[in-house]
Amino acid sequence: MACQESHRFATAGDPVDLSALFDPASIAVVGASADPAKWGHILSRRAVESASSVRRREVALVNRAGVPVLGRATYESLAAAHAGLGTSLELVVVCVPAAALVATVAEAVASGARAIVAITAGLAEMGADGARLEAEAVAVARAGGAVLVGPNCLGVADTGAGLQLGHARLPAGEVTVLSQSGNLVLDLADLLAQRDLGVARFVSLGNQAQLTVVEAMRGCLDHDGTRAVALYVEDVVDGRAFVAAAGELVRAGKPVVLLSPGRSEAAVRSAVSHTGSMTSASQVVDAACVAAGVRRVDDPVRMADLLEGLLGRRRLQGRRVAVVTDGGGHGAVAADALVDAGLEVPLLEPVTRERLRSVLRPSSTTSNPVDLAGAGDRDPTAYALAVTSLLDAADVDGVLLTGWFGGYSSQADGPGELELAAAATIAEAVTAQPKALVVHTVFPDSPTALVLRAAGVPVHRDVRRAAGLLAALSAVDSPGSPDLPAPAAPVSDLGYAAARTLLTEAGLRFPVAREVVDAADIEAAVRQTGFPLVLKALGAVHKSDSGGVVLGLTDLAAARAAYADLVQRLDPPSVSVEAMADLGAGVEVIAGCVRDRTFGPVLLVGLGGVHAEVLADTACALPPVTAARARELLLSLRAAPLLTGVRGRPPVDLDALAEAVGVVSRVAAAHPELVEIEVNPLLALPSGCLALDARLVPR
Amino acid sequence: MACQESHRFATAGDPVDLSALFDPASIAVVGASADPAKWGHILSRRAVESASSVRRREVALVNRAGVPVLGRATYESLAAAHAGLGTSLELVVVCVPAAALVATVAEAVASGARAIVAITAGLAEMGADGARLEAEAVAVARAGGAVLVGPNCLGVADTGAGLQLGHARLPAGEVTVLSQSGNLVLDLADLLAQRDLGVARFVSLGNQAQLTVVEAMRGCLDHDGTRAVALYVEDVVDGRAFVAAAGELVRAGKPVVLLSPGRSEAAVRSAVSHTGSMTSASQVVDAACVAAGVRRVDDPVRMADLLEGLLGRRRLQGRRVAVVTDGGGHGAVAADALVDAGLEVPLLEPVTRERLRSVLRPSSTTSNPVDLAGAGDRDPTAYALAVTSLLDAADVDGVLLTGWFGGYSSQADGPGELELAAAATIAEAVTAQPKALVVHTVFPDSPTALVLRAAGVPVHRDVRRAAGLLAALSAVDSPGSPDLPAPAAPVSDLGYAAARTLLTEAGLRFPVAREVVDAADIEAAVRQTGFPLVLKALGAVHKSDSGGVVLGLTDLAAARAAYADLVQRLDPPSVSVEAMADLGAGVEVIAGCVRDRTFGPVLLVGLGGVHAEVLADTACALPPVTAARARELLLSLRAAPLLTGVRGRPPVDLDALAEAVGVVSRVAAAHPELVEIEVNPLLALPSGCLALDARLVPR
Repeated sequence: MACQESHRFATAGDPVDLSALFDPASIAVVGASADPAKWGHILSRRAVESASSVRRREVALVNRAGVPVLGRATYESLAAAHAGLGTSLELVVVCVPAAALVATVAEAVASGARAIVAITAGLAEMGADGARLEAEAVAVARAGGAVLVGPNCLGVADTGAGLQLGHARLPAGEVTVLSQSGNLVLDLADLLAQRDLGVARFVSLGNQAQLTVVEAMRGCLDHDGTRAVALYVEDVVDGRAFVAAAGELVRAGKPVVLLSPGRSEAAVRSAVSHTGSMTSASQVVDAACVAAGVRRVDDPVRMADLLEGLLGRRRLQGRRVAVVTDGGGHGAVAADALVDAGLEVPLLEPVTRERLRSVLRPSSTTSNPVDLAGAGDRDPTAYALAVTSLLDAADVDGVLLTGWFGGYSSQADGPGELELAAAATIAEAVTAQPKALVVHTVFPDSPTALVLRAAGVPVHRDVRRAAGLLAALSAVDSPGSPDLPAPAAPVSDLGYAAARTLLTEAGLRFPVAREVVDAADIEAAVRQTGFPLVLKALGAVHKSDSGGVVLGLTDLAAARAAYADLVQRLDPPSVSVEAMADLGAGVEVIAGCVRDRTFGPVLLVGLGGVHAEVLADTACALPPVTAARARELLLSLRAAPLLTGVRGRPPVDLDALAEAVGVVSRVAAAHPELVEIEVNPLLALPSGCLALDARLVPR
Repeated sequence: MACQESHRFATAGDPVDLSALFDPASIAVVGASADPAKWGHILSRRAVESASSVRRREVALVNRAGVPVLGRATYESLAAAHAGLGTSLELVVVCVPAAALVATVAEAVASGARAIVAITAGLAEMGADGARLEAEAVAVARAGGAVLVGPNCLGVADTGAGLQLGHARLPAGEVTVLSQSGNLVLDLADLLAQRDLGVARFVSLGNQAQLTVVEAMRGCLDHDGTRAVALYVEDVVDGRAFVAAAGELVRAGKPVVLLSPGRSEAAVRSAVSHTGSMTSASQVVDAACVAAGVRRVDDPVRMADLLEGLLGRRRLQGRRVAVVTDGGGHGAVAADALVDAGLEVPLLEPVTRERLRSVLRPSSTTSNPVDLAGAGDRDPTAYALAVTSLLDAADVDGVLLTGWFGGYSSQADGPGELELAAAATIAEAVTAQPKALVVHTVFPDSPTALVLRAAGVPVHRDVRRAAGLLAALSAVDSPGSPDLPAPAAPVSDLGYAAARTLLTEAGLRFPVAREVVDAADIEAAVRQTGFPLVLKALGAVHKSDSGGVVLGLTDLAAARAAYADLVQRLDPPSVSVEAMADLGAGVEVIAGCVRDRTFGPVLLVGLGGVHAEVLADTACALPPVTAARARELLLSLRAAPLLTGVRGRPPVDLDALAEAVGVVSRVAAAHPELVEIEVNPLLALPSGCLALDARLVPR
């Protein structure tokens, strides 16, 4: 099965009541068909099935020709159905051609519809004519007080309410799935079902003409059946509203997992042709996820793995993982997998090793990996002793059990009963505490593994998936407020001096500077700046790479000569005379903000020289950021050692640098009229931090 | 199950005849036991099973007390067995305590043994006493013309010969497995069996006291039953012999896959405690794999994936992959996975897109991902049309089919027959050509998937594994000769001047320099170097960070003053007066060689400044390297853009730089008496390349 969904800009609607969408008392399918290959047939079947599963619902099938569908009589119009049933039709599923959409929506509203699911394709995703029809349909629905899903969507489901109005029946469970792809939902549903998990609610978002992913997310907040939210979205439409809604869900204890391809150019190309989405840079999506506490995954398998883990509620509070194995090879392979996943497998503290030595055989290794070294072979109780000791240890944040555990309960001879008992002990210990245990075993379907799974312990055949899951189970901070402040008074003067003033008032430090427009003013300016000094030709040529910056002038004559040369070569409107900082005394940093069409202002930091621009070593966040978050960003750079001091150089003043980066982010957040702010270089010194140049770009 | 194997240095033996090890006419188990938990019992059972499976073999069980084992009478000694059977005992399995090993090996040799499998543990892995016993046992075996496997091993197998003398029975197949870990072999065997693959030969290497992994690899060369070789090795003992043997296997069409953990410190720690191995740096192991054409994997799942793919013989000749899907979401996810795996998903050439348009529906996307966009839903024939067109296209090196294919043959209604026919078409097309096709599907066990698997097409449920496999199926170059040249005459003078001479004679260019020991000689030296010049204090203080280098001296007076200062501060034995190169005109590179205990000389290159030392941006290879390989290494650096020209700077002379790196590697290869050579900086200029300093360190 496949879908072709598309997107256009949607106006965020008022908060919507989704009860009629997920648990309607009555359903009508318009465009009901007797042809099993048509959507109008599939949806009719689903509607009939949904009419009697959990609660009784009235169902009306509408077929213009009045031919029977699924052995049921049909109505020739919604109005006839409305009249015939003598009740309002709460949910109307629309499977008519695009040209009939607006009229059908109008009929639906007239028949009392409070929710409309528009399967109909060929609207905004096909161009301007479709977009006009689509907007009209939304206007009609909105005026009638109905919420419209789609168009160009594949349906909705609420398994708790017995509603399955989608392209396929979904397994019931606790995960709400909001998606712009149909096949990926079926893929995910299959993976969840393999784990005895399933779907609480499903919304195929389609063109998001009225109901957007954000409103659908908000609808999960007070839905008790939703314990986690899985999103496949190529475009979140309103990035800041998305971050806010996701943050609310996370704070409400409902983790949000996002699958949003786009790390590669080919994936971006695919999204454009798939849903017409102009995706944000993947790094920006990552920054939004951090701001919201959303966990991002790259494929459905990892999404299902993570959802299973998150429903288990146990987390990794730090990065220190202990590995338990009964064979050195598996321990070493697991250690590499964990470190590749971004976790640590540190040497255990003496007190923990002592504790292990007191319960394990002398031949077992207690350093980490903890290798029972054959002791588990003789008596699997050793596995339980090791795992429970490690879950108890203060220097361990989580445990990965890897290798053979499960092998004995799979064999007729051998210590199978002891292994099952060990699994029960582990299951009990895990349940009683908050640290994460993940198991890799050659025997994922063994009775032993089933005991662990029943206790919510994820069990995997693939150690890399086990390690990746453990990393993904890291506790995320309760997200801070990502809200943008109220806009400040817009900046009208975008010149260099105005930029300096704006940023200085916000808290940035610049060297002394004087703007001169006449050679006669140089001497006065120089009295203020002292030597050495810098001349910058301002205006359109304010760029070091056009030869508009002259560094290291050490006397008045040189300053005058350089000024004359600048004027002659570049004819700038003015020249800035500035005290020159000692570049060698610090590290050059770039701090800038650009404006993303979906997420608004985006902060980028990197080191100067070749690092940011040539080696693409940058970090990114959604403004405004605190100094603490700015510090994290700076330290996440590959080139961070240059900030913390190398080769006998003192570390830079990270507090001052982080504070300066925070200032840049706050100015960007408060000035939506600016599409770009760049402070480059920002000179990070052993004490303090100095902005040496700044640039503002208007919308 | 678990194993504790250990390693000590072994002398590479003469080429050994392994026929008695893998296909003996007779087997004796010494230390046969009636206790099912003991190795002496398990091996007895395996020996009895191996006596009648493929060919009849004589089996003698030896139990010192003469108690029956497995309902069979036992002999009280090997000599008694030898006499009783009236035939020589070709293969003797030794399960006696360590103290009895030497005597048992002697008895085995006396009984005509040509192969001895020493399960016995507690030898070299336990310390010096054990190592002495182990060496004695090897000497006895060798003197008697027998090959000894282990000690501290878990057995051997040759499924083609019906021999299963291991801890567990292994599935029969075409992969020879040589391992230092027991559990990992069982893990791999399970994964191979899931794919209807299995093991040709198995050797548990144990302490490698006589038979090392290299000899076991050589034994696969003329073994027709071996089509691929899988290695789990923590220490290859003789790295260069390993590279040579692996290269021979690869050239013989038997791909070699190595699982060798050690990328993380914890894995290194694990290897030390597991087998006592001092592992080489993981980057060095990677370099050895490149030299030999060995494919390295990180876990058993990827190892089995890759072995399945390699047995299929189809390869990726380049990195350009076309993605085929029937739903945009799956296409985008697959594209990201492929790019993460190091492959490319480029926009297809117009001719290829035209070809696709001519066979697909107009709504399908032909850019790449190729999205059938629902057409496959109506008629799965579209899948076959897309895949076969792409396998044919000159701009495509391999194809990843992702998503729903397989879903129709899994359903009662729908176009299942058409899907099976499409799969058959794809299978036929793939078989007839050399490009790799890998399939990801939600339905890996569908009838459709079985058709593909039967044609050797790997089918996966996890798109990341599918993408990783495709990347791992890259064709590897037929490895060049990694052989070390015959040692050159050893360097006795390790001083700076001698280093310059050695490297200059090998082809490196240095600036003009004169060594002076007296202030009176400076003027004459300066006449040769010109200005600006550099002074370097030689001897123990020859280090720029001890203030022994003075740069940029522009006249004789300055040179004299600097000389006097160096002499006063550092009292060097001599001072080198050198013409000073213009550092700003080029890029500083570091080229050095160190000596690894296993692999011998190792070449390291990186960029100067902070890149190599602070940002750990280095590349590594086994000397000697060609200029072409040196070029690849340089271009593999993250900082490579600095060499190829950024920000308007000209590119450096990569030919000259690569040639210079090759020179350093050749000198290292020819001088085993040096443990380290460093040329730093090596100044890469727009034209040519200049070594500005060099250092030799003796063993």
